[in-house]
Amino acid sequence: MINIIGIGPNRENITLSAYDALKKADIIIGYKKYIESIEDIVEGKEIIKKGMGDEIARGELAISYSLEGKNVALISSGDPGVFGMANVMFQLISKYDNVDVKVFPGVTSLNYSASLLGAPLHDFAAISLSDILTPLDEIEKKIEYAAYADFIIAIYNPISKRRKKPFRRFKEILLDIKGEKTLIGIVDSSQNISKTKIVTLDQLNEEDINMSTTLIVGNSLTYEENGYLVTSRGYVVKSPIHPLAEEFYTKYLNDETATGSNLDCEFYPCHKELQCCDLCYCPFYPCGDGSTGGKWIKNKNVWSCQDCLWIHKKDTINCVKDGLKDILKEVSDLKTNKKELLKLRRACILKTKIKND
Amino acid sequence: MINIIGIGPNRENITLSAYDALKKADIIIGYKKYIESIEDIVEGKEIIKKGMGDEIARGELAISYSLEGKNVALISSGDPGVFGMANVMFQLISKYDNVDVKVFPGVTSLNYSASLLGAPLHDFAAISLSDILTPLDEIEKKIEYAAYADFIIAIYNPISKRRKKPFRRFKEILLDIKGEKTLIGIVDSSQNISKTKIVTLDQLNEEDINMSTTLIVGNSLTYEENGYLVTSRGYVVKSPIHPLAEEFYTKYLNDETATGSNLDCEFYPCHKELQCCDLCYCPFYPCGDGSTGGKWIKNKNVWSCQDCLWIHKKDTINCVKDGLKDILKEVSDLKTNKKELLKLRRACILKTKIKND
Repeated sequence: MINIIGIGPNRENITLSAYDALKKADIIIGYKKYIESIEDIVEGKEIIKKGMGDEIARGELAISYSLEGKNVALISSGDPGVFGMANVMFQLISKYDNVDVKVFPGVTSLNYSASLLGAPLHDFAAISLSDILTPLDEIEKKIEYAAYADFIIAIYNPISKRRKKPFRRFKEILLDIKGEKTLIGIVDSSQNISKTKIVTLDQLNEEDINMSTTLIVGNSLTYEENGYLVTSRGYVVKSPIHPLAEEFYTKYLNDETATGSNLDCEFYPCHKELQCCDLCYCPFYPCGDGSTGGKWIKNKNVWSCQDCLWIHKKDTINCVKDGLKDILKEVSDLKTNKKELLKLRRACILKTKIKND
Repeated sequence: MINIIGIGPNRENITLSAYDALKKADIIIGYKKYIESIEDIVEGKEIIKKGMGDEIARGELAISYSLEGKNVALISSGDPGVFGMANVMFQLISKYDNVDVKVFPGVTSLNYSASLLGAPLHDFAAISLSDILTPLDEIEKKIEYAAYADFIIAIYNPISKRRKKPFRRFKEILLDIKGEKTLIGIVDSSQNISKTKIVTLDQLNEEDINMSTTLIVGNSLTYEENGYLVTSRGYVVKSPIHPLAEEFYTKYLNDETATGSNLDCEFYPCHKELQCCDLCYCPFYPCGDGSTGGKWIKNKNVWSCQDCLWIHKKDTINCVKDGLKDILKEVSDLKTNKKELLKLRRACILKTKIKND
């Protein structure tokens, strides 16, 4: 029996079932560094430490011990299924008709890195930049499609001393499709304690990246707040309709509101910059989503839109007005159609903010 | 302090640090069903069980206890960062200036499901089909891009009693882009013991899917063997060059081999079907990768290509011959350039097999 065991990102994040399986194993096989991180768990057992490149040798060894009737634990860092030992092992055991395997899943760096950064995930893609056995073309294509799809993108194996080109192409492609202000979380696990850093794409330097780094690229709904990287999930903030919103949308539905900059308004320009006032009062207020620039006034339960310029941009206004036609027939729809309104908001963000320049 | 704790897919796959954090918490808040699965761990503590839809209520409650100085454990199934409680919580705590949070990552269903199915992952994408707060357009676009990129695709929240359209669109889009023979792993965790099933896309029925199902869609390198779903990672099988290969490629480099079907050959058609013999001897032999139809003869260390028709198809031959020009200058390159050969093989698979009809 071969237990392909994911030990997670570090000792404290190993699962109970992986821990038990390690305790029950006769023999432990794995890359030196990984075994050292769980030495106390496997103390007293037969242990075979191998070098990093030796995946096939480790696998064949596990098979030969298993054929002798031993209960083998084959160690993989993170999750064995994510660029780990599982795929290689399934390909190797198919040479035999009597080798049983069981995969013990683990916390992979994508989830671990996300937990350290805050809450950056929504729909996501994971891509390894290692071009040792994967053509660079294929890697580039995956980055492009993931960027166009607005996935959160987790990058494994971003760089090594001899392998820098895929990382450079990754940066170029993202600059092109997503723009230089795209947020990126960097999690460096080369030391015992992982270090995190949040940068914009134009600040992403090769010097900050090594083989033990995982990158998490934000999407159009990702923002930074208090040192955390957060991707808005888009949920309903329960709140009554503001009297000013009622007033504005009553006029709006009667076609009595201004188009473009309302220079006659006593508050103009209320957002400090030039602005279009077509949606003077935001139909999504309070969205509770920092990705468009708004934020909570702390401890007061008041959402401030002062730094949100998004709703006053031409592209946004066109997209929102177009969608409002179907959703907003009377002012009370602002309350009852909140989910549809939030979907419209999401659609317009994707349309207008996929590139962050 | 609020600990946002991922309890993984089930009790045995909880992490040690999540376990410890639960033990240290003063108060446990979460969806009823999830708390029940870890009842023995949190026994004796103050427990608040909530309904499923109440995410914001749960979050606000956690905040109010935290403001009272309690050490709160807020439970999320799987990983809190993957369609769990983390994003909502980070949006909610930004209302306050004095609420600390820590995210405890967990094994998410993507990794758990993959471990039960075998080793289906390589570069992957995860998409939730819930269109409650996400426009269907956006979901469709993500499925399309993920399919074109040849990602392994994990599907969360595939269906509910009232929400069937996104699943139907998902199937239609995949049929169109990837074809009816695309392999799909179904993992149903609605009961205590998860059930797995591997089907082709044309066999994927709504009746097999429920709210607790995760789907893993294979890519062009995914195959089924012994009830497992495996995606070939593309690694080097160490082996000498076969004498017949030497003979063939000596002729090939001298432009002395046949084009098209070699009807004069005493073994024709050696693969039972009509075939092009341009690459009579496969430059990738033994690839060890079942995705093109080959398999190991058990316990004999012999790779059989009898069921691999891929290398004898016109499109494949054109792609491979084109790439061989740069890689194969003399016969010994078949050995020394193995990694480049395997990359070429991968590139041609992607080019010729993205659609599985």
